[in-house]
Amino acid sequence: MPLFGALEAGGTKMVCAVGDEQGNILERISLPTRTPEETVPDMLDFYRGKNLAAMGIGCFGPVDLDRSSPTYGSILATPKLSWRNYPIVQRFEEALGLPVGFDTDVNAAALGEAVWGCTQAVENSIYITVGTGVGVGVIIGGKPYHGMSHPEAGHIFIDRHPDDPMEQGICPYHPNCLEGLASGPSIERRWGKKAQELSDRPEVWALEAFYVAQAVCNYMLTLAPERIILGGGVMHQEQMLPLVREEVRRQLGGYLQGRAIDDLESYIVPISLHDNQGVMGAVKLAMNALPA
Amino acid sequence: MPLFGALEAGGTKMVCAVGDEQGNILERISLPTRTPEETVPDMLDFYRGKNLAAMGIGCFGPVDLDRSSPTYGSILATPKLSWRNYPIVQRFEEALGLPVGFDTDVNAAALGEAVWGCTQAVENSIYITVGTGVGVGVIIGGKPYHGMSHPEAGHIFIDRHPDDPMEQGICPYHPNCLEGLASGPSIERRWGKKAQELSDRPEVWALEAFYVAQAVCNYMLTLAPERIILGGGVMHQEQMLPLVREEVRRQLGGYLQGRAIDDLESYIVPISLHDNQGVMGAVKLAMNALPA
Repeated sequence: MPLFGALEAGGTKMVCAVGDEQGNILERISLPTRTPEETVPDMLDFYRGKNLAAMGIGCFGPVDLDRSSPTYGSILATPKLSWRNYPIVQRFEEALGLPVGFDTDVNAAALGEAVWGCTQAVENSIYITVGTGVGVGVIIGGKPYHGMSHPEAGHIFIDRHPDDPMEQGICPYHPNCLEGLASGPSIERRWGKKAQELSDRPEVWALEAFYVAQAVCNYMLTLAPERIILGGGVMHQEQMLPLVREEVRRQLGGYLQGRAIDDLESYIVPISLHDNQGVMGAVKLAMNALPA
Repeated sequence: MPLFGALEAGGTKMVCAVGDEQGNILERISLPTRTPEETVPDMLDFYRGKNLAAMGIGCFGPVDLDRSSPTYGSILATPKLSWRNYPIVQRFEEALGLPVGFDTDVNAAALGEAVWGCTQAVENSIYITVGTGVGVGVIIGGKPYHGMSHPEAGHIFIDRHPDDPMEQGICPYHPNCLEGLASGPSIERRWGKKAQELSDRPEVWALEAFYVAQAVCNYMLTLAPERIILGGGVMHQEQMLPLVREEVRRQLGGYLQGRAIDDLESYIVPISLHDNQGVMGAVKLAMNALPA
């Protein structure tokens, strides 16, 4: 059975794995993300000599996914300056001599869940991660969706709560985008403590659910997904998922109808792949990169 | 050459047309929308005896587009009570003995533009109409997009402007959705006059552009369309399109990059089919309804 290299390239850590075509993860290491010069050789060492058929990379963004572009496969205007314009696909292709499948980290995670996880049964789904940043992977017709580029739906504008003690979001680009108001760092800025230390403060999670639910409603109204997965560090707070469902129902105000709305517990769900969804999606990207 | 019946079913008027497979509209009438009992027989009379190959209907919503549903082809919870639960597809199929293609009015208009209009060259586009209501048709991979159902993106939540003289939107479901804050009737409620009588009031259109641009940004971030069409009665105000483009650029704050953003005049465009996009899209729905 062929083996595939899988990389979940994140701003904090690089998860390197080897998987098979059933999505089994056979080996997995995690390396801190330093500069490309420091980090990439260690990653390549991990994949070498493993007789891989192809490589898949789910990468922090923005990235260039346009195959007709001269910078296809590069990381674009990231705040992590040493990675800006880094041609990650080309580097792996050349160093390993393998075909490389490529997408955003969130599209890869959404794909992992769609192929082997809780969105297997549906054609159209989204995966939202709320953590250091907020990202949204979009699956349409069973495949990661790209339009003009990949979606950047973590930055949609939402309505600031009038009682929010923070006067505007922390995103350097937008005063009231989702990431700026609801990411882990925005929680820390607002309340002066890390999210993990605020578990017993109900007002923290009521406000957080207000923001996440607004975004969920807007994705429902725009993309009409058949199922929505909520993941990321902030969602490790157990109180969040029920609060988000409750707020979604309240904010929609009876407008949308149907089975999904009647059964939000089956519609808005947690990740099912134990934080392996990213590397498993990267395995699938590798499989898709094989010549037909 | 085969001929196709096309119906743009609106809450105010019914536009009935006959077209050919090049999208030429050969005949067209408009009837006021009364009850189904009063309106449908007159529409059927128009289509009878014309030797049509199939029929296409773009209908005001919400509608049931799920082919596995017992109420497929019906109008759902519309405020127009006499049309609620009306099985419009079944009625036309039975009365005319023709295959009937069916979608929302806005998906049909988006399809018309995508097949014969200004979005022919792209795979993924959206058509936004701002008028009596606000609706969004979504084309993905050249086809009208349906997920769990059709998008309802006219109702996304947006941020109310702090200087808006109206304290909340007029939508009965949501205090701050796009339709409630930016539709024609919301303009009339806010300023005490119809939109057409407010052309010379710059504050009216600055606020309107603020709201429409917010929604455009959110659709860009979520759907990454390759082109966006703005239509509907409110967009007949000539000052609107340049104001919306300017606000989109300001609100994005430099976040998205690429050719589209560098050239918003080619990216955010007016309709190109002279308000025939709806019936032309219905012609295409009819063509798609023919057995392969």
